[in-house]
Amino acid sequence: VGTAATEVTVGAELGALRDYVDGLEALKATAHLLGWDEKTKMPHKAAAGRARQKGLLAGMYHQRFTSPETLRLIEGVENVDPDNVEARLVRRDYEIATKLPEEHVVEFTQAASLANHAWESAREQDDFTIFEPHLSKVLELSRRSAQYFGYETEPYDALHDQFEEGSRAAELEPLFEQLRSPINALIDRQPEPDTSALERTYPIADQVAYCERIADAIGYDLQAGRIDETVHPFCTNIGPYDVRLTTRYQEDWLPAALFSVIHEAGHGIYEQAFDRLELPAVTGQAPGLGMHESQSRMYENTIGRSRAFWEYHYGELQRTFPGALGSVDLDGFVRQINTAQRSFIRVEADELTYNLHIAVRFELERAMVNGDLEAKDLPGAWNDTFEKWLGMRPPSDREGCLQDVHWTGLFGYFPTYTLGNVYAAQFVEECERAIGPFEDHLRRGEIAPIREWFDEHVYRHGRTLTGKEFVQRITGGPVDAGPLIRSLEQKFG
Amino acid sequence: VGTAATEVTVGAELGALRDYVDGLEALKATAHLLGWDEKTKMPHKAAAGRARQKGLLAGMYHQRFTSPETLRLIEGVENVDPDNVEARLVRRDYEIATKLPEEHVVEFTQAASLANHAWESAREQDDFTIFEPHLSKVLELSRRSAQYFGYETEPYDALHDQFEEGSRAAELEPLFEQLRSPINALIDRQPEPDTSALERTYPIADQVAYCERIADAIGYDLQAGRIDETVHPFCTNIGPYDVRLTTRYQEDWLPAALFSVIHEAGHGIYEQAFDRLELPAVTGQAPGLGMHESQSRMYENTIGRSRAFWEYHYGELQRTFPGALGSVDLDGFVRQINTAQRSFIRVEADELTYNLHIAVRFELERAMVNGDLEAKDLPGAWNDTFEKWLGMRPPSDREGCLQDVHWTGLFGYFPTYTLGNVYAAQFVEECERAIGPFEDHLRRGEIAPIREWFDEHVYRHGRTLTGKEFVQRITGGPVDAGPLIRSLEQKFG
Repeated sequence: VGTAATEVTVGAELGALRDYVDGLEALKATAHLLGWDEKTKMPHKAAAGRARQKGLLAGMYHQRFTSPETLRLIEGVENVDPDNVEARLVRRDYEIATKLPEEHVVEFTQAASLANHAWESAREQDDFTIFEPHLSKVLELSRRSAQYFGYETEPYDALHDQFEEGSRAAELEPLFEQLRSPINALIDRQPEPDTSALERTYPIADQVAYCERIADAIGYDLQAGRIDETVHPFCTNIGPYDVRLTTRYQEDWLPAALFSVIHEAGHGIYEQAFDRLELPAVTGQAPGLGMHESQSRMYENTIGRSRAFWEYHYGELQRTFPGALGSVDLDGFVRQINTAQRSFIRVEADELTYNLHIAVRFELERAMVNGDLEAKDLPGAWNDTFEKWLGMRPPSDREGCLQDVHWTGLFGYFPTYTLGNVYAAQFVEECERAIGPFEDHLRRGEIAPIREWFDEHVYRHGRTLTGKEFVQRITGGPVDAGPLIRSLEQKFG
Repeated sequence: VGTAATEVTVGAELGALRDYVDGLEALKATAHLLGWDEKTKMPHKAAAGRARQKGLLAGMYHQRFTSPETLRLIEGVENVDPDNVEARLVRRDYEIATKLPEEHVVEFTQAASLANHAWESAREQDDFTIFEPHLSKVLELSRRSAQYFGYETEPYDALHDQFEEGSRAAELEPLFEQLRSPINALIDRQPEPDTSALERTYPIADQVAYCERIADAIGYDLQAGRIDETVHPFCTNIGPYDVRLTTRYQEDWLPAALFSVIHEAGHGIYEQAFDRLELPAVTGQAPGLGMHESQSRMYENTIGRSRAFWEYHYGELQRTFPGALGSVDLDGFVRQINTAQRSFIRVEADELTYNLHIAVRFELERAMVNGDLEAKDLPGAWNDTFEKWLGMRPPSDREGCLQDVHWTGLFGYFPTYTLGNVYAAQFVEECERAIGPFEDHLRRGEIAPIREWFDEHVYRHGRTLTGKEFVQRITGGPVDAGPLIRSLEQKFG
């Protein structure tokens, strides 16, 4: 498969397609700037005007992308090179974009927006009845989307495919099943968590400076990015050589900023690689959310929470926060950033229990989309399913089925979190086979050998392979939870 | 003339035109966000990608605006309401936008960009020969633009009209002539400037906080705007309820930030008024640069440098910077922020001498555009003209004809600075006739009566009148330098 720019002979037709996609991507990146600015800098009163700007730009993008010109340029390349990977990718995007009738997109967008507002109230008041009619509507429209997209086995696959091309519910089911007992066995063996040292006073200004240093140290390029403050951390691509991170700072909880910055920097390193390796815009993207998450989770958990990493970095962290960490030794710090226990809220869950939270959601949203579970029955089903996977029942819907925003429109998204963990562990095993144990490098502050391996085996291929194809190509086998279980057993066993 | 939203009966045709222009304005505002972000937040390496994004968006705007759809919507309104002011304004914009052939615009844009780079080198090396061929090219293309736009009396008017509709060189010439001797007489009477107190240490963090307070105090709404740091201060409209200012902070020169914030806040107050008074996008703009500058200069000079203003605010300024200003009394401070003397550089010139710098440029650019002066003869002509207006000769081209960026493409712009000063003085005389002397209000920290007068007589009319028409309507007479001369004589006499 031809991938990086240098491998492809660029004919006039391909050049024309690339220029066209470049323009579309510049438009999409501009929309990302509007979103980034909204969450980081925009004045309070500008919200309504900004919503209009975003809607307008999204409409212009859609109109351009679904125009006959797009098809003409795709066909131009296909006529001279029928197997051209870039034409294939743009054709796939084009077909997806044109599968949903415009009135359905409009209806869906409005229903999702209303559902979002209702969900906020419902969660705040712990009252599922506020959300139920909206969930029901969005679910109905999502089922209709699945029919428009089409599928082979079950409707859920049509939606999940939008987030992780080629991944199927029938494969996810055994994957989650494979994780259930080993993880539960490990959780049972964890000591009572102690994170007292991380709750001391960490002056925000010092956190800001330290987070920039640690992002730089793991390979995030601050000359082609920046870190700002938001309520919910994210990473966004604003254009060529402009990939930005956000985080939130809590004075009395160091992990809030520190690990979200390392996590988002993982996303950022992936996105920055496409510019650094000079991939064309068509291919210079991650193929799906699972692959993207594999990088953020590898940087956060495998690297950022490892003892070896902190062997090199802990001294500077202590010097930055002498009041909080002066009396805490390396082992104590590493223990405190790696605690695990069962809890009700996904976004507060640790590395070990996280995938069980996802299993619950996968099972429920699959049943909903496939028509086996209705909105009104969700609260009961949630509690039963949660108990099945984690062995306890939520005391309220707020700590149960009302906690996540995803079901206001993003059915099929959840499994990508676990796929990210699974991919990451599979890739790390292969990478270590090639360059030796991560800890030997991290202990010396070396990150380059890891990134170079990912440049070669992942980043430079952009989205010319799916997540599943990456795994096959790198490991010679299928997506497999074995390596993830082994790595968790090594850390928490 | 119908102006504010409430005065107009909105028919279906006008509603359609307004929606369409709203969309175009949202696109333009998005381009402004790209520009603001470029100068305040964008990572270093992203410059090339950003240039592409800006070009793309400008192209999309131009394509949309010059499409037959625009004309169809204009004609729709004209058919039911032949004198509709909004249709008239959009038609004028449309006709201007379609007057220049696209290949001319492309050639001009490229020549201006190259001229800009050449000018930077030429100024740095004090070598006019580097800039000369580029100036020659841009001049030739500007003369051609004037032919495309068309004019009644002389080519220069066609270009100047783009920045200040209805203003004519034949009227500007006597205006500048009127200013020459009174201003020179005043300068001759000024004492040797002493600004030593303003050059003490002003911690940047305290300047940032103080500048926000003073912008708020004069009526700039920080809930619908923000202040960031840039090399060159500016004000930009990012969308509804989002008008942002920038400034630069110098630790050892208080006026750099303080007066640029008050100046830019003047622009910002004008722009924010269109949202506050709920004007439609078609009319909710300043009619030209002269009107815009009238507000920034009134806030900066008439208000921000007045003794009465600081009678109210100086106590807090002293408390903010006790080290620098603790021993400086109010009269000393007011004297130091109102010094004047002849100098060579326009951007460093004071309120009194500033208009003489503009007179020099007007005379020279008029001769160039009208074909009476060629690029190669500029340095000599500059020095002669400068001597004629300010009585001294620049020691170098860097301190002479190479100091400004405008002649890399913006012929016809310069006079708007002086028109701003002239308009401001004319408006202030009328405003004082209505509400009493400014100083009586400013002394008590009152700004509302001034803004209310401008709401009524200027802001609410948007761009339904030209600068010249505003003056006629407000004063009952023509544009006249008399009030400006009187105000300068009062301050510097």
